[in-house]
Amino acid sequence: MSQPRTTRPAAPQTPEPAAEAPQATRRATVPALEEILFAPQHVLDHGFIRVVDYMGDDGAIVQAARVSYGKGTRQAREDRALIRYLMRARHTSPFEMCEIKLHVKLPVFVARQWIRHRTASVNEYSARYSILEDEFYLPRAEQLAAQATDNRQGRGEGLGPEESRRVLDILRDDAALTYSHYQELLNRDAEGKPRDPARKGLARELARMNLTLGVYTEWYWKIDLHNLFHFISLRADPHAQYEIRAYAEVLLDIARRWVPVATEAFEEYVLGGAHLSRSALAIVRRLLAGEAVAQAESGLSPREWRELMAALGRPVIP
Amino acid sequence: MSQPRTTRPAAPQTPEPAAEAPQATRRATVPALEEILFAPQHVLDHGFIRVVDYMGDDGAIVQAARVSYGKGTRQAREDRALIRYLMRARHTSPFEMCEIKLHVKLPVFVARQWIRHRTASVNEYSARYSILEDEFYLPRAEQLAAQATDNRQGRGEGLGPEESRRVLDILRDDAALTYSHYQELLNRDAEGKPRDPARKGLARELARMNLTLGVYTEWYWKIDLHNLFHFISLRADPHAQYEIRAYAEVLLDIARRWVPVATEAFEEYVLGGAHLSRSALAIVRRLLAGEAVAQAESGLSPREWRELMAALGRPVIP
Amino acid sequence: MSQPRTTRPAAPQTPEPAAEAPQATRRATVPALEEILFAPQHVLDHGFIRVVDYMGDDGAIVQAARVSYGKGTRQAREDRALIRYLMRARHTSPFEMCEIKLHVKLPVFVARQWIRHRTASVNEYSARYSILEDEFYLPRAEQLAAQATDNRQGRGEGLGPEESRRVLDILRDDAALTYSHYQELLNRDAEGKPRDPARKGLARELARMNLTLGVYTEWYWKIDLHNLFHFISLRADPHAQYEIRAYAEVLLDIARRWVPVATEAFEEYVLGGAHLSRSALAIVRRLLAGEAVAQAESGLSPREWRELMAALGRPVIP
Amino acid sequence: MSQPRTTRPAAPQTPEPAAEAPQATRRATVPALEEILFAPQHVLDHGFIRVVDYMGDDGAIVQAARVSYGKGTRQAREDRALIRYLMRARHTSPFEMCEIKLHVKLPVFVARQWIRHRTASVNEYSARYSILEDEFYLPRAEQLAAQATDNRQGRGEGLGPEESRRVLDILRDDAALTYSHYQELLNRDAEGKPRDPARKGLARELARMNLTLGVYTEWYWKIDLHNLFHFISLRADPHAQYEIRAYAEVLLDIARRWVPVATEAFEEYVLGGAHLSRSALAIVRRLLAGEAVAQAESGLSPREWRELMAALGRPVIP
Repeated sequence: MSQPRTTRPAAPQTPEPAAEAPQATRRATVPALEEILFAPQHVLDHGFIRVVDYMGDDGAIVQAARVSYGKGTRQAREDRALIRYLMRARHTSPFEMCEIKLHVKLPVFVARQWIRHRTASVNEYSARYSILEDEFYLPRAEQLAAQATDNRQGRGEGLGPEESRRVLDILRDDAALTYSHYQELLNRDAEGKPRDPARKGLARELARMNLTLGVYTEWYWKIDLHNLFHFISLRADPHAQYEIRAYAEVLLDIARRWVPVATEAFEEYVLGGAHLSRSALAIVRRLLAGEAVAQAESGLSPREWRELMAALGRPVIP
Repeated sequence: MSQPRTTRPAAPQTPEPAAEAPQATRRATVPALEEILFAPQHVLDHGFIRVVDYMGDDGAIVQAARVSYGKGTRQAREDRALIRYLMRARHTSPFEMCEIKLHVKLPVFVARQWIRHRTASVNEYSARYSILEDEFYLPRAEQLAAQATDNRQGRGEGLGPEESRRVLDILRDDAALTYSHYQELLNRDAEGKPRDPARKGLARELARMNLTLGVYTEWYWKIDLHNLFHFISLRADPHAQYEIRAYAEVLLDIARRWVPVATEAFEEYVLGGAHLSRSALAIVRRLLAGEAVAQAESGLSPREWRELMAALGRPVIP
Repeated sequence: MSQPRTTRPAAPQTPEPAAEAPQATRRATVPALEEILFAPQHVLDHGFIRVVDYMGDDGAIVQAARVSYGKGTRQAREDRALIRYLMRARHTSPFEMCEIKLHVKLPVFVARQWIRHRTASVNEYSARYSILEDEFYLPRAEQLAAQATDNRQGRGEGLGPEESRRVLDILRDDAALTYSHYQELLNRDAEGKPRDPARKGLARELARMNLTLGVYTEWYWKIDLHNLFHFISLRADPHAQYEIRAYAEVLLDIARRWVPVATEAFEEYVLGGAHLSRSALAIVRRLLAGEAVAQAESGLSPREWRELMAALGRPVIP
Repeated sequence: MSQPRTTRPAAPQTPEPAAEAPQATRRATVPALEEILFAPQHVLDHGFIRVVDYMGDDGAIVQAARVSYGKGTRQAREDRALIRYLMRARHTSPFEMCEIKLHVKLPVFVARQWIRHRTASVNEYSARYSILEDEFYLPRAEQLAAQATDNRQGRGEGLGPEESRRVLDILRDDAALTYSHYQELLNRDAEGKPRDPARKGLARELARMNLTLGVYTEWYWKIDLHNLFHFISLRADPHAQYEIRAYAEVLLDIARRWVPVATEAFEEYVLGGAHLSRSALAIVRRLLAGEAVAQAESGLSPREWRELMAALGRPVIP
């Protein structure tokens, strides 16, 4: 079970996953994904995602669907059309038949959003057992923005250069200060030796309390393709916080390598589509019939109206 | 995505899963499991389990656990000891990091028990789309038994030869009759052609209603190792119905090939162990102190007492 | 814990749930749902659904959402608008804060579709412990239809009166025959006494194998509102089999009583809406711009095209 | 849906849950739990748990189990014996038929452990929408301890008074400093008004990054009884971190009020019991036969041996 080490400068905290010499398998194998296996895809300033293992490919989705359909339909449909049909008709179970395991390094405040997706398996770096490294997320200046005003959640206008500088100073200094106190609480110097032989040092499970939510953690995360797509659809959305969106976009790239046909269908039917309510459909019908419809008499709220006009590529005329 | 066909006489209903030519992978690979990949392991009279895909090995459990422990403990423990510790201390999440996909053929009444395990993915042969084959479970004569008398559930004494013969006749004849009526409802002859060109035939989703619970179905079933062990612990138990136990035992054999160290730990700590209640522990302490303890003053019900005596290898003296 | 019995002619097999005398509670309470508490809502020929317990109301959804939003938004939004926003924006977690428990009687082939919804709790009548009653689903004549021809799944044209008669005869006779053999296998007469004192009777867990998939079973089923809506959206769909649709429609009626505001939002945004793919949206934009678009150059498959035209209320011109 | 406010000094951040005037219901009702409904049970320095809603009681467990057993067993068993049997035999599904909803206030590092229990519903206070209060966990001096030496995880010996003082000073000062910078980042003064009209203030979703893991958050958490017991069995364990154990103990108290019979069974069979491995059982048998067994030849690791001796109430003689 021992494994050779690879170079992984961005992730010094955990043992190396396998970068094993190639072995022969009769399982479904995806050369495009094998190419990037174990290699960290960088995200944010210190984060990464890397693929540690996977099960299945586009063909595995087809195969599982055909268990349901039986031999009668074997020749009748072509694989790509079948996958697109399954995606469109919300036949989600065949997409559960593919599974991926990822090693992710991410700030704690992102991890707290991420973990809300319950249908997945997780093993996280434990700050009860081990000491966290001195790595904190520091946004790039162009990511610093004021609270959105049209929306109680999220970011609006960018900050000016002076305010940005002050923000980054606070974040950087407080990360440095709280980390240095973390080491003092543990009674550890930079080499991991006791600072003061007369002190015991506080238990790790308590000392970590002094770190800020920007500190990086790591985990192994294993999820099936259906739930991965669901994660991406919620977290690559413009309403998601920028930092988790950055991870969701890397996940989408990984999916494109792994299951290109399914991912294309996902982008066509889910990511690139729009859900229209009963009232919105009625409005579209009236518009198609040449009627003029105004928001005030549409039955839609102003926000719904704006979203519908955006989906239809029309200017918003209230 | 197209795959060569293999010979699979026991499972004519669904398209062939891959028996692909070996390919190179850098993923964790288990030669002992590759050996039986795609090959049906027979269960009951017409059933089987075969491994269609898998992710991870014993090393993957260790690797996931070490993400939690961090680099500090890398050399400190040996892999087998770590896996045994995880099993013993109910640290179940690293066992979720292994996944297996199986193709199973099983009678409907067994499928109904099986599906109660919710943390798994399933694609079942659909009798709305396709026609079920003429295959029904018929127990071997030695499996025919009367209702248990000490236990409201399960089997007791075997039936005599004459009663057994009558039982098998009923099961066989009713299966044949209802299947032949199923074909008549569908207006199909044995070659799948219309029996009577003047009739339309009933929709499959309704006609299947005429089949008995002994008819065989098939599914793809994907589950992680932690949940597979949980399934086995409940379904390989003597209280489980014999027919599902037969499947659970094949699953245990597959696990032994796939993750031998984890399975050994599972057999030591879960399957071969016993859970003692607070009162039972108190009794063991009294017995070890040389005291005589009788059921009547033990605080245990007669059934608990019998089970404790069995676990301790003692004769039951009420 | 003992409870008075109520009259429940349709469900003689299981003990009576509470029809307790009213008690005082400070929990959220829904008078419109209390009215039908414990009363079977009939479905199909022998089935029913009845509400056994519930937790939460429309207000509980609002309350849970406001935990997320904090005090700042308390007065800002009105409850109904908030619930509609949550439904529209797929903020599903507040809908998980309501829970309902139902007692359902349903044919086994429907139960097999139903149980595929995994995020729910179930206790089913056990045919290992107890003897199933002589109740089998027999479709009404107008439900008898041939296999659909435009669709490999589902029903098409109705059967003629003669073929219908033959179908019902087969279903009725085989149910009667297999049930009478079930009793013979158990060595039981209609009063539950041994038929033949010289025989032992087969264990129940085996004898039930002789019953057809049309036999009725019962279960308690507990699910949260988000997952109930998901169930309804899939099972009240015209592609679902008629028999489970009949249950889904009763569930929708129950939801309307229980959480009227949330159910209205669900009907507006989910049930009555449509999901348009990226390509479909592009076509709608071209149509709105006054362009003529034909299926052949639309990029949509003929089936997708038909579905889009139906959603837009337009005639299908290929 | 509007609700009167109650006094809740410990939890000013979220809107008040219902403290509604009593209403009549025919649902199962538990007076002992109604007594403490909505009232915060204090945990740690600023935390609490309060019951917001519940479904079911001990009788609901019995009722669900009897659906499985059918009418035949109705009189045969007494309720308490049935509940104990279900707990002992791991028939967990009837315990899923009870549900509880709690409002919990807890430090973020505890919330991160808590959320690992996936089979539950959660709505958390959102620091993207709203501003976190100035409340941080500060351990009592007697909780300050050094890293355990026999165990890589957890606490060992207490710290001396001087080191304790320094630890508390760091934790307190860094909480105050980072919170005051949080307000500066937001450009907010203590009254929530802009500090500097010329600045915009950083979006909340970014500013919160500057807070430490000791800051308090709040959530609504809804879980069924089976999973609540599982949570308690893992988190009331001496190996769990003290801070989450404090919550688990309050949960156990709540369970005792809500479902006293089930909780008694849980304490007898799960909390107070011990799982013995195959090898441990073999040793107990040898001991009962009067044999002397030493750790070295027992097949158990030293740690397993110590744990077995503790369970048997024997001194550890290696």
